[in-house]
Amino acid sequence: MESESILITGAEILDVNGVRRASVLIEDDIIREISADLSPGDADIVIDGHEKLMIPGLVNTHTHLSMTLFRGVADDLPLDRWLNDHIWPMEARLSGEYCYAGALLGCAEMIKSGTTAFNDMYFFMDDVARAVDEAGLRCVLSHGMIDLGDDEKRRAELKKSRRIIRKCHGMADGRVMVALGPHSPYTCSEELLKETASMAAEHGIKIHIHLSETEDEVKNVLESHGKTPVEFLDDTGVLGPGTVAAHCVWLSDDEMEILADRDVKVSHNPSSNMKLASGVSPVTKLIERGVNVSLGTDGAASNNNLDMIEEMKTASLLQKVSLQDPTALPARRVLEMGTINGAESLGIDAGVIEEGKKADIVLLNVRRPHLVPWRNPASHLVYSASGSDVETVICNGEILLDGGELERINENYVMEVAEEAAEELTSRG
Amino acid sequence: MESESILITGAEILDVNGVRRASVLIEDDIIREISADLSPGDADIVIDGHEKLMIPGLVNTHTHLSMTLFRGVADDLPLDRWLNDHIWPMEARLSGEYCYAGALLGCAEMIKSGTTAFNDMYFFMDDVARAVDEAGLRCVLSHGMIDLGDDEKRRAELKKSRRIIRKCHGMADGRVMVALGPHSPYTCSEELLKETASMAAEHGIKIHIHLSETEDEVKNVLESHGKTPVEFLDDTGVLGPGTVAAHCVWLSDDEMEILADRDVKVSHNPSSNMKLASGVSPVTKLIERGVNVSLGTDGAASNNNLDMIEEMKTASLLQKVSLQDPTALPARRVLEMGTINGAESLGIDAGVIEEGKKADIVLLNVRRPHLVPWRNPASHLVYSASGSDVETVICNGEILLDGGELERINENYVMEVAEEAAEELTSRG
Repeated sequence: MESESILITGAEILDVNGVRRASVLIEDDIIREISADLSPGDADIVIDGHEKLMIPGLVNTHTHLSMTLFRGVADDLPLDRWLNDHIWPMEARLSGEYCYAGALLGCAEMIKSGTTAFNDMYFFMDDVARAVDEAGLRCVLSHGMIDLGDDEKRRAELKKSRRIIRKCHGMADGRVMVALGPHSPYTCSEELLKETASMAAEHGIKIHIHLSETEDEVKNVLESHGKTPVEFLDDTGVLGPGTVAAHCVWLSDDEMEILADRDVKVSHNPSSNMKLASGVSPVTKLIERGVNVSLGTDGAASNNNLDMIEEMKTASLLQKVSLQDPTALPARRVLEMGTINGAESLGIDAGVIEEGKKADIVLLNVRRPHLVPWRNPASHLVYSASGSDVETVICNGEILLDGGELERINENYVMEVAEEAAEELTSRG
Repeated sequence: MESESILITGAEILDVNGVRRASVLIEDDIIREISADLSPGDADIVIDGHEKLMIPGLVNTHTHLSMTLFRGVADDLPLDRWLNDHIWPMEARLSGEYCYAGALLGCAEMIKSGTTAFNDMYFFMDDVARAVDEAGLRCVLSHGMIDLGDDEKRRAELKKSRRIIRKCHGMADGRVMVALGPHSPYTCSEELLKETASMAAEHGIKIHIHLSETEDEVKNVLESHGKTPVEFLDDTGVLGPGTVAAHCVWLSDDEMEILADRDVKVSHNPSSNMKLASGVSPVTKLIERGVNVSLGTDGAASNNNLDMIEEMKTASLLQKVSLQDPTALPARRVLEMGTINGAESLGIDAGVIEEGKKADIVLLNVRRPHLVPWRNPASHLVYSASGSDVETVICNGEILLDGGELERINENYVMEVAEEAAEELTSRG
């Protein structure tokens, strides 16, 4: 990659290491130097960081990006009607072009709200990869595999996954990585999960799975397999340090122990869990057991946006009220979940502003009434800000958002293509 | 009042009556005409409403505006440490100028996020009224009265309230109204509450009170008075159709019946209740009993912003997860809470886009990635948008925000004055 060096001068830096003020020099895709002494002559591009807050790019560890096309088409419904009457019929009409359009829209939204990397599970993932390549973001993509115990389906799903690995893993200067995406313990057979585990080991890639999202799911798995969802997964070998398990709402203490022992990464999705009335994940208990818990927005059909700053606030507030403890999940802790924990979960050498790390960096404009007085950056980021305070986004050393304007993709074009795709998807049938 | 007529052309209108497209003509402080046939020649000022969503100005029915100065100075703490170590010591150093600075900042933030009217209880309320007059908003203000059973304090508090009524009720072309603000059943004596009830009747003004915010409060009132907080208040005569009771988290079924019988207006504050871990208000049950429930952000020290759009989403999501029912408090219902219910609670003839109503109107820019595809305005407003999508705000027929820029007050000046005040308040001691 050939790219211009970037100097960000005098910003206040906030990450898991705390708060400090310095200038940051980016060369190629790397944070090269952090110092008070860097001068504007040192770089091709200079960004004035004064009155800006610099944070690591946010990492969204569970979403279905192309579902942005289903935003607002079905809300306030029971889960079965939401799935059966709306989501599944529309998904049956999906194509690669629709998924590309939805993914590009999702990329635009994520960039504008400060997300630089995400973990996606859906369909037509080579088209999603194409959108991500164009948009400039970093991601881990997985084809969502569902076999429902059908041998033929299992083989077809694994074949699709193999194809996506071959075609997309490592593309876009390594920004696009591929994982295996067995959908969940209630939609995947034991055989599919076992083959997933061995294929992940063979390719050295990650696994992305839904786990214990609803109480019904736990009942179903117990009935079908005589084991809890975590026990069932554990026996197939899919639980390990390279596995991101999304939701994890309904967990027994024993299951939490297993997740901690296996170093499984948990993606907490508070807005989706609230909106679909799934329940409250025992995030605080998982953290106490040493589990890496990160944050995800889930798809836009169950949130209904991809704003990770909003997600950080919701995560904290939901733990506080459900535990009746105002000290639960403080701002610094959810910042950690939204940045370094997410980066570690996805195997990205970023999530923190340090020399040698990938240059995935976000600047927020903090000179706004709702962020005054400027006293406590972590608190203001989590409790007062929103994604729309994001002004500059750099991913892999390249500027994707400058002064609130998308640099690599055309915002109007992206919105038009997505509107057309959504129109076709919802009007047909 | 002498003001220019305003025509908003072709916007999509969303309020409690549903969705339709029309042009809206504003003359003086009133919505004069709503029609598809209005032509630009009919008005002094023409605003292009295409690709905009028009909603009634949002109404924030419980806040302490000057507490914007305490934003982020103390978070993630137990309630007693938050109050005793941080909030109360800073409040002891408040002055009229500080409260003015904080209120002006709060006005700027509210305007920029689509709020046109609010219900405020705090101190130095004539200085708050001055800020509101300058900012152009509409409000009901009350001096927060606390006597803790002390006769001298009671007389002093009532005197302060009388002074504010005389000085401020009806000022700024009627935009500023004054109410009586007995702080709560655990900080006010029976005598103070009885005098409040008769003074409110005498002046024909509203009452604004905190009620059953925490479980401890209920215990304390039961111990002190042998009655629940609602029963205690009811016996003093302060519960009636002109009373706005904030929080109402811990209510028995009998108490809900009393609130419904007396036509008390309830202000639900979900973010504050979550952040301070107070609990979950039985909003759905109150609505089922016919109670008017509106929305409040509470002060910025326990939220930490004044974004009513965010508050609508939080209200809906919190009911859904706590009732384990994804159909609870749907988007249309929280829109009602944030607009018409708030307006009715405060006695404002607005909250709906209808001819003859006060011209309190907000336009959002809906041509943004996180609002695409544009399918379901109520859902998108509540679940996908944020206050920063607000582009134009009209209050009492006057433009307060135009293209995202404050028209009546200078944003930079407001932020500087507030920063200085906050600096002085937090550095002294």
